[in-house]
Amino acid sequence: MFKLGETFNSVFILSKDIYDGFISVFEDKNPMHVDLEFAQNHGYSQVVMHGNILNGFISYFIGEQLPVKEVVILSQDIKFKNPVFLDDILQFNATVFEIYDSVNVINFKFKFINQKNITVAKGKIQIKKFI
Amino acid sequence: MFKLGETFNSVFILSKDIYDGFISVFEDKNPMHVDLEFAQNHGYSQVVMHGNILNGFISYFIGEQLPVKEVVILSQDIKFKNPVFLDDILQFNATVFEIYDSVNVINFKFKFINQKNITVAKGKIQIKKFI
Repeated sequence: MFKLGETFNSVFILSKDIYDGFISVFEDKNPMHVDLEFAQNHGYSQVVMHGNILNGFISYFIGEQLPVKEVVILSQDIKFKNPVFLDDILQFNATVFEIYDSVNVINFKFKFINQKNITVAKGKIQIKKFI
Repeated sequence: MFKLGETFNSVFILSKDIYDGFISVFEDKNPMHVDLEFAQNHGYSQVVMHGNILNGFISYFIGEQLPVKEVVILSQDIKFKNPVFLDDILQFNATVFEIYDSVNVINFKFKFINQKNITVAKGKIQIKKFI
């Protein structure tokens, strides 16, 4: 099913609906995320989006965009390399880099790249595929 | 400010509001998360909650529950050891295990333990503290 080197691409837009929704669900109103002056005082041009919104996008990628539905995530790691701002358009790219056929485990490397071609986050996802 | 070995504890309840809210924001309706029969056919007693809901709880922990607000997350990793179900009551425990004073970086280990005393997830969080 999955092949080594196989690549998946999609686009996630960090819309106001998603930003507001994330805050509504998880109540993380840290001033870096909601207070422009506070964010600017710490070197950012705008309030910084929650990094874990990108983890929500990964949930969608694994749950909805793979060619199989019989999967669960075993582990994830993500490095936040650069800030993400409201309305950023994120190219998401994931590549199969390891397959363990004996246990039906597949490892992906991924990155998110913004509209300025800056890599904002990268990491790995390990999933288990049910037979 | 932070001390090696310092521990933080909190409780997160995986309520229907959070489950519904996560699906509303991120649109991950993989059948493992929404279709009881599908989940049961794959060995689960109930539909499985999205692992990335736990990452949302981590966002709240870092953004709202630390004694300082001037922080950003640099990286996270999480291993999903056991399934989480609706209405699970999760004890969250995070411990400072590394501090890099020269760059104001703090590393936490964390775990989520459910009401049956089963560790459902564990991992690490790296944050940067602004001076």
